[in-house]
Amino acid sequence: MKYSYVSHLECPKCHEIYTVDEVNQLCRCGAPLLVRYDLNEAKSIFKKEDLNSRKKSLWRYHELLPVKNQNNIVSLDEGMTPLTQLKKLGEKYALANLYIKDEGIIPTGSFKTRGASVGISKAKELGVKQLAMPTNGNAGAAWALYSAKAGIKATIVMPQDAPNITRKEVAVSGANLYLVNGLISDAGKIVGKLIAEQGIYDASTLKEPYRIEGKKTMGYEILEQFNWQVPDVILYPTGGGVGIIGIYKALLELKEMGWIEADKFPRLVAVQAEGCAPIVKAWQEGKTESVFWENSKTNAFGINVPKALGDFLVLEAIYETNGCAIAISENDLSEAQKLVAELEGNFICPEGAATFAAARILREQNWIKVDETVVCLNTGQGIKYPETVETNNVTLLNPDDVIKA
Amino acid sequence: MKYSYVSHLECPKCHEIYTVDEVNQLCRCGAPLLVRYDLNEAKSIFKKEDLNSRKKSLWRYHELLPVKNQNNIVSLDEGMTPLTQLKKLGEKYALANLYIKDEGIIPTGSFKTRGASVGISKAKELGVKQLAMPTNGNAGAAWALYSAKAGIKATIVMPQDAPNITRKEVAVSGANLYLVNGLISDAGKIVGKLIAEQGIYDASTLKEPYRIEGKKTMGYEILEQFNWQVPDVILYPTGGGVGIIGIYKALLELKEMGWIEADKFPRLVAVQAEGCAPIVKAWQEGKTESVFWENSKTNAFGINVPKALGDFLVLEAIYETNGCAIAISENDLSEAQKLVAELEGNFICPEGAATFAAARILREQNWIKVDETVVCLNTGQGIKYPETVETNNVTLLNPDDVIKA
Repeated sequence: MKYSYVSHLECPKCHEIYTVDEVNQLCRCGAPLLVRYDLNEAKSIFKKEDLNSRKKSLWRYHELLPVKNQNNIVSLDEGMTPLTQLKKLGEKYALANLYIKDEGIIPTGSFKTRGASVGISKAKELGVKQLAMPTNGNAGAAWALYSAKAGIKATIVMPQDAPNITRKEVAVSGANLYLVNGLISDAGKIVGKLIAEQGIYDASTLKEPYRIEGKKTMGYEILEQFNWQVPDVILYPTGGGVGIIGIYKALLELKEMGWIEADKFPRLVAVQAEGCAPIVKAWQEGKTESVFWENSKTNAFGINVPKALGDFLVLEAIYETNGCAIAISENDLSEAQKLVAELEGNFICPEGAATFAAARILREQNWIKVDETVVCLNTGQGIKYPETVETNNVTLLNPDDVIKA
Repeated sequence: MKYSYVSHLECPKCHEIYTVDEVNQLCRCGAPLLVRYDLNEAKSIFKKEDLNSRKKSLWRYHELLPVKNQNNIVSLDEGMTPLTQLKKLGEKYALANLYIKDEGIIPTGSFKTRGASVGISKAKELGVKQLAMPTNGNAGAAWALYSAKAGIKATIVMPQDAPNITRKEVAVSGANLYLVNGLISDAGKIVGKLIAEQGIYDASTLKEPYRIEGKKTMGYEILEQFNWQVPDVILYPTGGGVGIIGIYKALLELKEMGWIEADKFPRLVAVQAEGCAPIVKAWQEGKTESVFWENSKTNAFGINVPKALGDFLVLEAIYETNGCAIAISENDLSEAQKLVAELEGNFICPEGAATFAAARILREQNWIKVDETVVCLNTGQGIKYPETVETNNVTLLNPDDVIKA
């Protein structure tokens, strides 16, 4: 029995094939590469019941992950995050089966950890010694900490406006940290020059093929946690879109494995902010690619991505599952963040809050029906964005003071 | 089969008995109360194999927790945090079997969540509508968020120097938040007056008997994760000491259940900061109680507790397990925090870092032997203490800049 049934890399645009045994970044045609597996062989040996006795980490799905040798795994026991029904909020939104998949409850506090664990493990397997990446914060934090564990030297470039806490995470890992007076696209250009000059590994979103494999485990877990019953709708806050691409890939693979019913997929919803909604615009116009969004701005920093390299894959996932794309105002997003905390006790991040606002609006529009099973994906912890909560008017007492009723 | 085998409350000092079906806070003699179970009945029915098919939350041990009706459970799927071997750090410290129990990977990002989930669930069962508590930050955050979920109104009083992020967590929950220009002992006095005047539930450390029950699940989990093999040493950062009291209580209960070998307990180590070490002083002097530590000060804010109400129970746990108590310098503590991140990728909190520094020193003193199995308990996430990591000298680039090799 093989540890992994990984087979090769394939370009989803021109279908050229590459090996998983050497470093490959983008396809010659410029598109991101996808990892393919011998699913026919895998499904004859790997059964969903095998999972029951395994550790609650995303590596429980190792047969469908790209690392061939178990010794290369770099793990902090990430994955199997809570999937929890929110009854009080569901009542408020008139959604009888509303769930949160809470990716805050994971090492480094965001879903970026999944991409980092799988991406770094494969980089280690490929003999990578140095990598560089641009980031809006959380990915850089995750990749820096996992690089440290792997003994890989990381260079991380982030906008100076990225969440301050992610800067601390990168610094404590011992990685090389740079700030840029600009957006993630500017950080990307700086990393591009560094890669070109020094020939180090490019860990930019989708420029290495393996982080999608980490992200797709969110899809595996949601299905396993629902006992392989397919939910009706999954809402995902979409910046680079790797998660939604990964969840769609997971669904296709699970269908081929015969683990879920072949004729039903959840409708995938890409949620963006009104201040940065290139995918929403493309979807509204029926396009298969997006256009760079000028002067993008949102407090949901992780989805401030003006043009995603994998935009065509995000749009494909939406179209193929009869999903949709929706943009949320900053006000709706903060209201949802507060409401989730006040009713359910989850302090979620602004990106995650956008998915709850979207669920409410799509329910009001009857795009989601009252009895449908709905999963909102919270991509990280609220505490990484302390500035989203106002505490200027809190009362300061002296030791001898008394609290009035 | 009962959901819980809880029986009564008992005073560990004067042995007076109280009911678990009404609100009880301290014993008439002033000591904290402990929860007792019908372990004889429990052990004939509840087997450790029953756990295999249960959800990975601390409520998997519900037979040995104090909530009688499952409908009262207030849970965000907390518990079963990672227990992970740290090989690179172990090599550095000459400890062949060094583990981290990482309590950062839990809702609200600290071990206080355990006490909050069990404490609030029991408060709900007892019909509590309002509670108040003083806190050094993390406990207040956890209790505020779980109170919100339970629909209980919470009043939280914390020192203005408590970690700023915990203030945000309390605020977002909708709880009443007050800051005090003083220490947690001052916050305690203010809460005391409020309780006395308004007769609301006192959720101060050990003034309600149920948070210990939440904390003891750390002990259950460590044992379950080691497949009921007892480790040699557990190091715990000790402020109020509820965790170490809880772990010792868990060991006694597991012994009575027959789930662990009767004649071997781990040596429990209370780790404090040099700037606030009342338990260490008492232990060094062979005392059974501690003395208020004047002008206490440490960056490990959670263990800045000058005098713990349960000090006699902490000292008992140390004496009875042949453990010890040790104080760590601020410098050693920050060095350990950085080293754990750089080698292992875990960004731990300063309190947790103290346990690693303690493990290194106790190994150097040969109090811990090279082959012993050692568990360092990290009580929370490093990101809740961003000021512990210096980032003032990070280079700021412009979009057209180039990174030099």
